[in-house]
Amino acid sequence: MSETVSSYDRLMAHLREADLIGTSISVLGWDQETMMPPRGAALRADQIATLSGLYHELRVDQRVGEWLAACEADGALLSDARAAANVREIRRDYDREVLIPGALVRELAQTTVLAQQSWREARERSDFAAFAPTLAKVFALSRAKAECLQNGDSGTLYDALMDAYEPGATAVQIETVFTELRSSLAPLIAEIARVGNEPGVLVRHEAISTPQQAAFNALVAGAVGFDFSAGRLDVSTHPFCEGIGAGDTRLTTRYRDDSFVDSLSSTLHEVGHGLYEQGLPKAAHPGQPLGSAASLGIHESQSRLWENLVGRSRAFWDWALPQARESFGPVLDGYDPGALFRAVNVVEPSLIRVESDEATYNLHIMLRFDLERALLVGDLPVDDLPGAWNERMRQDLGMDVPDDRRGCLQDIHWSMGAIGYFPTYTLGNLYAAQLWDAIVREIGDIDGMMSCGEFAPLLAWLRERVHRFGRTYPAVELCERATGTPLTAEPFVRYLTGKLRPLYGV
Amino acid sequence: MSETVSSYDRLMAHLREADLIGTSISVLGWDQETMMPPRGAALRADQIATLSGLYHELRVDQRVGEWLAACEADGALLSDARAAANVREIRRDYDREVLIPGALVRELAQTTVLAQQSWREARERSDFAAFAPTLAKVFALSRAKAECLQNGDSGTLYDALMDAYEPGATAVQIETVFTELRSSLAPLIAEIARVGNEPGVLVRHEAISTPQQAAFNALVAGAVGFDFSAGRLDVSTHPFCEGIGAGDTRLTTRYRDDSFVDSLSSTLHEVGHGLYEQGLPKAAHPGQPLGSAASLGIHESQSRLWENLVGRSRAFWDWALPQARESFGPVLDGYDPGALFRAVNVVEPSLIRVESDEATYNLHIMLRFDLERALLVGDLPVDDLPGAWNERMRQDLGMDVPDDRRGCLQDIHWSMGAIGYFPTYTLGNLYAAQLWDAIVREIGDIDGMMSCGEFAPLLAWLRERVHRFGRTYPAVELCERATGTPLTAEPFVRYLTGKLRPLYGV
Repeated sequence: MSETVSSYDRLMAHLREADLIGTSISVLGWDQETMMPPRGAALRADQIATLSGLYHELRVDQRVGEWLAACEADGALLSDARAAANVREIRRDYDREVLIPGALVRELAQTTVLAQQSWREARERSDFAAFAPTLAKVFALSRAKAECLQNGDSGTLYDALMDAYEPGATAVQIETVFTELRSSLAPLIAEIARVGNEPGVLVRHEAISTPQQAAFNALVAGAVGFDFSAGRLDVSTHPFCEGIGAGDTRLTTRYRDDSFVDSLSSTLHEVGHGLYEQGLPKAAHPGQPLGSAASLGIHESQSRLWENLVGRSRAFWDWALPQARESFGPVLDGYDPGALFRAVNVVEPSLIRVESDEATYNLHIMLRFDLERALLVGDLPVDDLPGAWNERMRQDLGMDVPDDRRGCLQDIHWSMGAIGYFPTYTLGNLYAAQLWDAIVREIGDIDGMMSCGEFAPLLAWLRERVHRFGRTYPAVELCERATGTPLTAEPFVRYLTGKLRPLYGV
Repeated sequence: MSETVSSYDRLMAHLREADLIGTSISVLGWDQETMMPPRGAALRADQIATLSGLYHELRVDQRVGEWLAACEADGALLSDARAAANVREIRRDYDREVLIPGALVRELAQTTVLAQQSWREARERSDFAAFAPTLAKVFALSRAKAECLQNGDSGTLYDALMDAYEPGATAVQIETVFTELRSSLAPLIAEIARVGNEPGVLVRHEAISTPQQAAFNALVAGAVGFDFSAGRLDVSTHPFCEGIGAGDTRLTTRYRDDSFVDSLSSTLHEVGHGLYEQGLPKAAHPGQPLGSAASLGIHESQSRLWENLVGRSRAFWDWALPQARESFGPVLDGYDPGALFRAVNVVEPSLIRVESDEATYNLHIMLRFDLERALLVGDLPVDDLPGAWNERMRQDLGMDVPDDRRGCLQDIHWSMGAIGYFPTYTLGNLYAAQLWDAIVREIGDIDGMMSCGEFAPLLAWLRERVHRFGRTYPAVELCERATGTPLTAEPFVRYLTGKLRPLYGV
C-alpha cells in the first residue's frame, strides 16, 4: 500500500469519526424540533454549540489539509473516479470550512438553536417584534460568516452562503432563471385567475383525527418505498426531513383535521427527501461526499417530484383515493379521483408557501430570494421586514397579509441561519420536471403503474440515476447524465401548462 | 482573585463543557430507547462510543488533576462547605475515572448500545440464546472495568462496580441488610400466603386505550408536581427516567389496556425519579456534584416513595379514583377507593419485578444481586443463567418461570452494563420508608392532604431536605440529616407490616 493510499484511508477514517459528531448534532436538532420540552432550549443551544465546535475542529484539522495534499498528488489514486470525486469534494468543503473561525461556528450554532425556539413562540403569537432582535443577530452572524467565506473573492456575500446549499450557483444565474420563469408563469396565472375556481372544488371534509391521518400518511409513505425500519414520521411546527445517517432518516409533517390532502402533500414532500436520504450510500461512505446529497436543489427535486409530479397526478389519485376511503370511511363519500385531482391542482394565490399550488409556488420563492438578499447586505433593516413582505405579497400575489404568522414568520429557514436556501426549491421544481421527462421516456407507462400503486420502478430509476451517486458529480452534471440535457426551465413550464390549461380550459 | 480560586473556576468551566457532551449522550440514549428506528442501532452505537470517549477524555484531562490539587491545597476555598463538597466528590470521580482506559470506555459504550437492541429483540421473542453471547461480552467488559477500578485494592470486583451507583456501599453490607430484611419479610409473606387473596381483588377493567391512559398519567404526574414544560412522558419497553439536564427530564412508562393501575404505578415510580431530577440544582451547578444525585439509592428512594408510600396509600386513591373516573368514564363503575387501595396492595408472588408487590419485591432484588455477583466473577456461566434464575424463582417465590421473557430477560439493566445497580432499589425502599416517617412527623396530616390532591407540601419537604443538596453529602449522611437517624430497615418493615397485617387480618 503506497503512502498516499494510506493518506486517503486516514482521511476516510477521520471523516467517519467527524461524521459521528455531525450525525449526533442531527439527532439533537431533530429532537429539538419534535420532542424537546420548551425549557430544554438553553441546554440544547449549549450542547449543539459545543458539538458544532468539535465537529468544525475535526473538519479543519491540519492533518486533513496534509492528507488531502498527499491524495491530490497521487495519480494512481485519482485514476479511480470515485476516489477522485471524493478528494475533489473534500477539498471543496475543507477550503470553505477553514475560512470560518471556530468561535463563529459555535456562536452561530447556539444563536440559531435559540432563534428557532424564539421563532416558534413568535410565530404562535404572530409577534414579529419579539423575534426581530434574534433574527437581526442571525443575519449579522450570517453576514460575518459570508464575509469569511468570501475571502476577498469577487462573488457576492449571498453567493458565498448559497454555495453551501447549491455548490457553484450564483444569484445572477438564479435571477436569470427566475425572470424567465416569471415571464412564462405570469400569463398562465393571470388567465387562470380570470376563469377562477368553482366553489367547493377544494376537498374539505368532516374532521379526521391526527392519528388516523398519521396512519394513512405512513401507509402511503410505505407504499412509495420509504423504509420505516430505518425511519420515522412525526409531527412538527414546520415539516422537515432529517437524514441523520445510515439506517436513520426522520420525517415530520403537520395536520389540519378538515384536509387530509394538505398533510399528505407535506408528507409526500418529506418522503421525497427521505427516499433520497435512504438511497444515498451512507453506510459504504460514512461522512464522505460519495455518501452525501449532490446539492439542495437535487434534494428538493426529489421532494417536489414525489409531492407534485406523483402526488398531484390523476394516476396517483386513482390509486390513493380508494386507499384513503378504506382508512377514513364515509367521510370521503361523494369524492371521486377526478375531484381529488382537481382539488390538488387548484391554482389560487395563497398566503402560505408550503400550501401553495405549483404555479404560484415559485412566486413565494422569488419573494424570499429578493428579501433575504436585501436583509443580508443591510439594504432592508430587519424591522422593516414585515412591511416589505406584505408589500411584495400584494404586488406579486395580490394578497393582503393579515398577520405575520401567515406572513414573514411562516418559514423556519431564517431562524436556522439557512440563508440562500430558498432558491433551491425552485431549482428543485425544474430538476424534478426534467427528471420526469426522462422517467416517462424510459419507464414507459408510469401513469398506469402509479394508478395500480406500483411505485417501485420509479424509485428504482431514481436510485439508479440519482441517489446512488451521492456527490460524485456536481448537480448540473448529475442532471445532465440522468436526463441527457442540461437543466432548463422548459420541461417544468411544459409540464405545468400541459396539466393546468386543460383543467381550466385556458 | 487568588490562583487557587481561579483553578476552581477553571475546573467548573471544564466540567460544564464536559457535561454538554455527557448530556448529549443522554439525549442519544433516550432517543435510542424511545424513538430510534431499529436499523439506526449500528450508527447509534458508534455515535455513543465516540461521544463517550470524548467525555471520558475531558473528565480525565490532566489539567483536572492539577486544578483539583490546587483546590485541595486552598484552605480558604475549602472553608466554603459547598465548594469543599464539590472538590471532594470531583476528586472521587476523577480518581475512579482515570483508572479506566479510554478504549475500554468506548468499547463498553458501543457494546451496551448494541446489547440493549439485542436484549429488546431477544426479550420480544423470549430467545435467551440469541442474547447470551452479547450478555457474556457485557459481563466480560464489565469485569475488565471492575479490575481497573479495583486497582489492587482489597474490595471485591462487585464493590468496585456498585460504587458507581451507591458510593461507599459494599456487598457485605448489602448482604447483612438483605438477610435481616428476608427474615422480617418471610414470615409476613408466608402468613399472607396462607390467607390468600379473594378472587377478583385485582382491578381488571374493559380496555382503556393507551392515549387515554397516557393523558391520565400526565394528569397525575402534573398534579404531584412534575413540570411538563421541562419534561416529557413517553412509551418504552422498560420504563425509565432520563434526567438529561437543566430543563429537560424525560420519563417513560408502558401500558396494558385492562389495568390502568399498572401503568400509573410505573409512571409514579418514574415521576419520583423525575421530581428528584427536576429538583436538583443543575442550572446553578452544571456538571458539578452539587447539581447531581447523591446516589442511586437516594434516587430510588424518591421513585419508590411516590410509587408506594403515596401511590399505594388509601389517601391517594381517595383523590385519584374520582380523577380516574372522570378520565375513563363508566369503565370504573363498581370500584370505590377502598377497592383500589386493596387491589394495589395485593401480596402475591409475581414473575415480574416491576409488577410485584412491596413485600415480595425485595426478593426479586436479592435474586438479581446474587446472580449478578456470580456472573461477574464467573461462578455462573452466562449460558446457565436461565436455569439458575428459574431455580431461584422456585425457591424464593415458589414460581415456575414459563419463558425467559418473564424470567431472566425481563430487565434491561445488564444489557446496559448496569451491574451492581439492583441493590439500590431495596436501599431505596428503606430510605423511602425512613424519609416518610420524618415527613409524617413534620408535615402532619399528610393523608388528609393527599386525599385532597394536595401534594405540594410533600414535594416541598423533599426539595428542602433531599433534592437541593445534590451530592453535597454522602447518601447515608443525607438520610441522617433529613430524618435524624442513620438508615435502618425498621421503618420499612414497620410501614409494610402496619399496612398489610390489617388488610389480610394476619
